[in-house]
Amino acid sequence: MPPPADALLIRACRRLAVPRTPVWFMRQAGRSLPEYRALRAGTAMLTACATPDLVTEITLQPVRRHGVDAAILFSDIVVPLKAVGIDLDIVAGTGPVIASPVRTADDVRRIRRLVPDDVPFITEAVSNTVAELDGLPLIGFAGAPFTLASYLVEGGPSKNHEHTKALMYGDPPTWHALLDVLADIALGFLRVQVAAGVSVVQLFDSWVGALSAVDYREYVMPHSGKVLNGISDAGADAGVPRIHFGVGTGELLGLMGAAGADVVGVDWRVPLDEAVRRVGPGRAVQGNLDPAVLYAPWPVIEREVRRVLVEGSAADGHVFNLGHGVLPTVDPDVLTRVVELVHSVPPAQPAAAGGTTAAG
Amino acid sequence: MPPPADALLIRACRRLAVPRTPVWFMRQAGRSLPEYRALRAGTAMLTACATPDLVTEITLQPVRRHGVDAAILFSDIVVPLKAVGIDLDIVAGTGPVIASPVRTADDVRRIRRLVPDDVPFITEAVSNTVAELDGLPLIGFAGAPFTLASYLVEGGPSKNHEHTKALMYGDPPTWHALLDVLADIALGFLRVQVAAGVSVVQLFDSWVGALSAVDYREYVMPHSGKVLNGISDAGADAGVPRIHFGVGTGELLGLMGAAGADVVGVDWRVPLDEAVRRVGPGRAVQGNLDPAVLYAPWPVIEREVRRVLVEGSAADGHVFNLGHGVLPTVDPDVLTRVVELVHSVPPAQPAAAGGTTAAG
Repeated sequence: MPPPADALLIRACRRLAVPRTPVWFMRQAGRSLPEYRALRAGTAMLTACATPDLVTEITLQPVRRHGVDAAILFSDIVVPLKAVGIDLDIVAGTGPVIASPVRTADDVRRIRRLVPDDVPFITEAVSNTVAELDGLPLIGFAGAPFTLASYLVEGGPSKNHEHTKALMYGDPPTWHALLDVLADIALGFLRVQVAAGVSVVQLFDSWVGALSAVDYREYVMPHSGKVLNGISDAGADAGVPRIHFGVGTGELLGLMGAAGADVVGVDWRVPLDEAVRRVGPGRAVQGNLDPAVLYAPWPVIEREVRRVLVEGSAADGHVFNLGHGVLPTVDPDVLTRVVELVHSVPPAQPAAAGGTTAAG
Repeated sequence: MPPPADALLIRACRRLAVPRTPVWFMRQAGRSLPEYRALRAGTAMLTACATPDLVTEITLQPVRRHGVDAAILFSDIVVPLKAVGIDLDIVAGTGPVIASPVRTADDVRRIRRLVPDDVPFITEAVSNTVAELDGLPLIGFAGAPFTLASYLVEGGPSKNHEHTKALMYGDPPTWHALLDVLADIALGFLRVQVAAGVSVVQLFDSWVGALSAVDYREYVMPHSGKVLNGISDAGADAGVPRIHFGVGTGELLGLMGAAGADVVGVDWRVPLDEAVRRVGPGRAVQGNLDPAVLYAPWPVIEREVRRVLVEGSAADGHVFNLGHGVLPTVDPDVLTRVVELVHSVPPAQPAAAGGTTAAG
């Protein structure tokens, strides 16, 4: 059953009044849960992502355990790259490894667009999961063009992105061609998810905080904008809220919103009230408890959760989340307790009249 | 021979007029140079750091090759920790590895202060190097308390600093005791260098960009301030300019200046004119070419170097540098060419009257 339009997460993304702040956690499905580790034992990551029953079960685990206000599809940002035939694997302890890094115009020309038949397992997993979620929203997701490009150009995870930036600065036509095809792949991947029933999408630009605002605007924003605006232009899919997130993006928050997001995800370095100022009116924010705070004693966690809620009340819409993904060694019981705490705090009324009067 | 007071670097740090912008590179001594790799072959990092002749030669290599306006003492931020008896090693490909991570009040109590006799090799290396530098300034350096603490608490390099933050949030008295002793160690290490002849110091807080401004102010700033102010209070050492640098510190620039710096180092994410606004009057800035730009074709590098120089002219004092250390695989000839370019561009006159009239 699809989520009702008055699901908390969807209302907050649309900056409508909510009775309490919705909460979910990036990487809530995954290594922090013993039931996940048991289920994944012996199954490679990319195999798990392509097995609908596993995807559904892993996606549901944190919903059952924590009582979060949304599920997020269990997948990996390289899944659509694999689906269009790029030779890659996810190596435990390392991350994605690309067999032949993409560095030339010829390399880029060999990358093809994604069609729905490339990812039938996504359609099946999303449909089955939505059916199980009993009205709770399912968030779809894709990696953003810059982050996908960094993996492809570097050949794997990178601290300094030197090959990526060398291509970006050194051969702008090839760079833009690469980001254009990656935007189409990300958009195709999200459209499959929307068609199958996700009711919110998040575009993850994990590494884009490595860029200055000037470079973001020139080399990345048009392509991320193509993905975000492509979702809103998708006819029957129109109106699916779009969350846009990266780490270390304090200088980029305004541009990441203007690229076409309904919600800008914020890491813990920028307080949400300041983030609201940088993002500007007309968009919600998501975040931003430091994931490392979850290792502190409970009174500290409680203080910090309440601080995030207060700072988030500066926004017309606030989705509570961490400022980055759940760390693998965190105690999952602490996450459950955070959800209970967020749910127990009545939200401050949004400051803007539009938010309060559009309720119902 | 000690550098004259009108050395370019020292004048720029003091915001006095300069005929051209001084330039040096973080990690200019090290892996990007074939002569360094040849010299280091077969010698462990910590052994090299404790061998004065090697330190002097490695420190001089980039001066000879690039014609930079300063040398920086070849060392490592864990050298003073090793010198006070902490069991650690630098493992190639990993970084510092601490035998017994520091996580309790008892662990902290076992750390002792540094005395000059702990580092006679530093005194010797600095004296010999200054004698060879023929008036060019030698920059001393130390790791800042937060970054040293992160290594000690995590047991090595860390992406998320979870143990560090758990201690910081969970046991503030132990945290502050740890940062206090580390501040004393860093200060002791810098005072040895100043006494032996360095004429500028840089405090590296490599990892502090992992903190929000609120946490920086409460948990870190007093301790980094103790180091920076301890240098200026050091009697005969007074007046040695103090550079304060970290990566991803866009939210912290004002506080890092206010902690007691004469010069705030800036990474490439924040343009220098904006950094000047955040740092406020009365301090110079250092930076901030993206080290990955050095992999681009020369016309792009030239454009970016000129942009940094223009943006840096918003400051009363600007020291040209990269926004982070030289990457090991960069072509050293490109660095030489950057130095030549910076030297060929006449600086814009500082905007503030104080800068222009205090010349000579």
